[in-house]
Amino acid sequence: MSQTIVSNSPRPRLAIVRVNLDTGRENVVVISRRSKALRPEVFRGFSRVELRYNSKTLLATLLITDNDALVGPGGIGLSEPAFRRFAEPEGSLVAVTPAAPPNSLEAVRGKIQGRIMSAAEIDEIIDDLTHYRYSDMEIAAFLLGSASFMTSGELIALVGAMSRAGTQLRWNTPIVVDKHCIGGIPGNRTSMIVVPIVAAHGLTIPKTSSRAITSPAGTADTMEVLTRVDVSVDEMKEVVAACNGCLVWGGHVNLSPADDILISVERPLALDTREQMVASIMSKKLAAGSTHLLIDLPVGPTSKLINANQAMRLRKLFEFVGDHFGLAVEVITTDGRQPIGNGIGPVLEARDVMAVLTNDVAAPADLREKSLRLAAHLLEYDPKLRGGSGYARARELLESGAALRQMNRIIDAQGSSNCRSDLGTSTFDVTALSDGSVSGVDCLQLNRLARTAGAPIDKGAGIKLFKKIGDRVEQGEPLYRVYAFDSAELDLAAAMAAANSGYSIDGADVRSVR
Amino acid sequence: MSQTIVSNSPRPRLAIVRVNLDTGRENVVVISRRSKALRPEVFRGFSRVELRYNSKTLLATLLITDNDALVGPGGIGLSEPAFRRFAEPEGSLVAVTPAAPPNSLEAVRGKIQGRIMSAAEIDEIIDDLTHYRYSDMEIAAFLLGSASFMTSGELIALVGAMSRAGTQLRWNTPIVVDKHCIGGIPGNRTSMIVVPIVAAHGLTIPKTSSRAITSPAGTADTMEVLTRVDVSVDEMKEVVAACNGCLVWGGHVNLSPADDILISVERPLALDTREQMVASIMSKKLAAGSTHLLIDLPVGPTSKLINANQAMRLRKLFEFVGDHFGLAVEVITTDGRQPIGNGIGPVLEARDVMAVLTNDVAAPADLREKSLRLAAHLLEYDPKLRGGSGYARARELLESGAALRQMNRIIDAQGSSNCRSDLGTSTFDVTALSDGSVSGVDCLQLNRLARTAGAPIDKGAGIKLFKKIGDRVEQGEPLYRVYAFDSAELDLAAAMAAANSGYSIDGADVRSVR
Repeated sequence: MSQTIVSNSPRPRLAIVRVNLDTGRENVVVISRRSKALRPEVFRGFSRVELRYNSKTLLATLLITDNDALVGPGGIGLSEPAFRRFAEPEGSLVAVTPAAPPNSLEAVRGKIQGRIMSAAEIDEIIDDLTHYRYSDMEIAAFLLGSASFMTSGELIALVGAMSRAGTQLRWNTPIVVDKHCIGGIPGNRTSMIVVPIVAAHGLTIPKTSSRAITSPAGTADTMEVLTRVDVSVDEMKEVVAACNGCLVWGGHVNLSPADDILISVERPLALDTREQMVASIMSKKLAAGSTHLLIDLPVGPTSKLINANQAMRLRKLFEFVGDHFGLAVEVITTDGRQPIGNGIGPVLEARDVMAVLTNDVAAPADLREKSLRLAAHLLEYDPKLRGGSGYARARELLESGAALRQMNRIIDAQGSSNCRSDLGTSTFDVTALSDGSVSGVDCLQLNRLARTAGAPIDKGAGIKLFKKIGDRVEQGEPLYRVYAFDSAELDLAAAMAAANSGYSIDGADVRSVR
Repeated sequence: MSQTIVSNSPRPRLAIVRVNLDTGRENVVVISRRSKALRPEVFRGFSRVELRYNSKTLLATLLITDNDALVGPGGIGLSEPAFRRFAEPEGSLVAVTPAAPPNSLEAVRGKIQGRIMSAAEIDEIIDDLTHYRYSDMEIAAFLLGSASFMTSGELIALVGAMSRAGTQLRWNTPIVVDKHCIGGIPGNRTSMIVVPIVAAHGLTIPKTSSRAITSPAGTADTMEVLTRVDVSVDEMKEVVAACNGCLVWGGHVNLSPADDILISVERPLALDTREQMVASIMSKKLAAGSTHLLIDLPVGPTSKLINANQAMRLRKLFEFVGDHFGLAVEVITTDGRQPIGNGIGPVLEARDVMAVLTNDVAAPADLREKSLRLAAHLLEYDPKLRGGSGYARARELLESGAALRQMNRIIDAQGSSNCRSDLGTSTFDVTALSDGSVSGVDCLQLNRLARTAGAPIDKGAGIKLFKKIGDRVEQGEPLYRVYAFDSAELDLAAAMAAANSGYSIDGADVRSVR
């Protein structure tokens, strides 16, 4: 497989060898320790190198091997992402040098020292990010440098650069509506009800959603219980052409890829600034070709926003960016004191959604009501609809079964999922220690419990709530049930719930587990 | 090689396979795409995983392969550093889970948000760093979080934790002297003259030095032209026992390993804060067992410190930390307006050093004078020496040939180097465009030129200066000569020198290259 043609130049070139290693988004290359091009004083394992072939360059992380079966002394092994991105055939002779950091890193260094970045510098940073020229530590430097302060000009430049960096969807209808929730509330699967209502009405709503990263389920994880969500851009367009809407995973569609890269560093560092949240959401919506966007900001003591003041500041930022780019943005605050619906975890949430769509009498009223309210806002964007009639129209579409039929069309168009849809077989209940009424529910703790039980990896793991805030409970009555497949994970969740159930009754914490 | 024993538990264990991949300081593991333990929803290439075997854990970066020759479905391949650190035999069955970030990252997040870290938190951070539990992005977060401000208490805790994290050398003599220059001045190889003088006098001076990272030569690179520098701790102790001193590369001795890890992230990001510089230097000196430390702060327009005020602030910080740990610190500022000596690059610098030690009349006077002055300060730490006689004693040891004999003993004790010591065979001269006198020399530009010519990788590449500040030059007279082995690198350096020679004559820049 490997060629050993080495030129006589003082810096020998190496022949490309494709190496079967999946290294995620990172470009990784492998060189033999006996390579003539390897100067141990310069190259060390995990240092950054630059490959050059004619005018083409690639930045990569270096691994060194003594294993000739992987790559011989005359070759350079390109891992799968590096081979795909460099796009030159095996045997091509490349020059390898220690990599200088991308030029745009100068602007990042300036930002860390308190300078303001120009729009051109931000464009260059996003271009380098999107082309995998930044190492993880360089991405962290950009995020942390921007975290302390960002001017409104920088924010606008960032949103613009990010929105132009990947796929840019355009639709043939004058009105393209979208909704977005900033997250944090367990079970809050309104999109799966709002999209079929709005699509049934006839408005275009091409919804992309994320998978859970720190929560027990993202909309994409829950939708996957019912249908395939990892569809391509072309497939997504077909589904929208046929059904007016879709509910797909954003990861396959490459909208604002710089955002995905930034998030992959923000999450492990738990960085969460208003500006980066707005840049993330608005760049994706602009790239998705939306014209009207409804943003849901849940406010509550264990929500991402803990008071109306925080929500107001974030709202202004969304409106400012929306106005600049000509995207009609409406921001509403909603009740984020506790989970929405009864289920937490993909299978339980999917069951809640289908209960609402089938007008089941046992369907969670809060999920139904919030979804109708959001759908009403979106329907009002239709110029043909009489002002103020959005809510009635939404309820009509839900109660008549039109929304359910639309959901089934979308499910059929996206194709079948091969996910398991059964509930976890091991369970335990958390019960009330005393009589009283539920005074508080800790969203963060319920998220942790559901993840510990196995969600979202195990679709059927999660939590089913029996009581909400204001409900009367008697001593010994179950507050919620935890579902898991794995007994070790169930035990771990039980220990966690024993320490902190996430429920307060009459202001006191509940710590009993049965 | 790989075993395929997989248990029936819902999370199958994988058998350790040693994989011949050198991944530098990073722990990397490889899993088959067909592995039963691999859940593609959880594990992605380059994500972080935790290996568990009994109570032992290891954090590592994950690669995924389809190549059974590397690792089969029942195995987990450990790259060389991971295999060495985990220290369990091949075939041992380990559990693999997605890695949670180290607990100490909570303190880093707090620091980013403006909190002050406690000493216990800093200990934990340094412990996690030293045990390779931090990813590059997490290291960047720690550095950037600390870069904006650090209390004196945090700095003391950081120096203490770093100094205790690796090898801690202790010597049998009550006085152990050391010197350190914060760097930035080309050709400034005083240690190679100071150490033999001080050791010839009889004081203990176990000097460790760094290799160049952004400069054309570190003391270790230059010393390597004359002798082996990559010696172990035990070998270093033998050399010091025999010769009172040594001049070795610090990289092999594992003093303050956390510092090496922090530097590997600081350098590519070009982060350079006073606190981190002080923590780096002082942690290494405390670990090296020094009792008396002389710090050289060169001040000049293209030096790291551009005025006396900056030097004063840094001096206070060194003194504060020294006093806290009972290390006698003396800080002096020196002339950093231009290079010291005539050579830049390992071979040329080594020739300058040997010219001084052999009392060659052509030896650079500035290098000789500065070295004598520094040696004088160190000799005064000897209680037996009459106050004020340090300079005369240093000159006596140099002029009598005692220092040269001591240097040759050290060279013999450290063993022979197999480096080339010949000068670059391709050269060009940079000449004066007009008559006048040299008014300025840009240290940064000369560093760049020497590196572009191939230093320190090519030991014989570099720059020989013919003129210094204040020297009269005539039009057409050479200012300096650039040496290289590689013609492409020489051409690049010539183009760079044509754009900016680094010299000013009568206040005007010189841009002519011959």
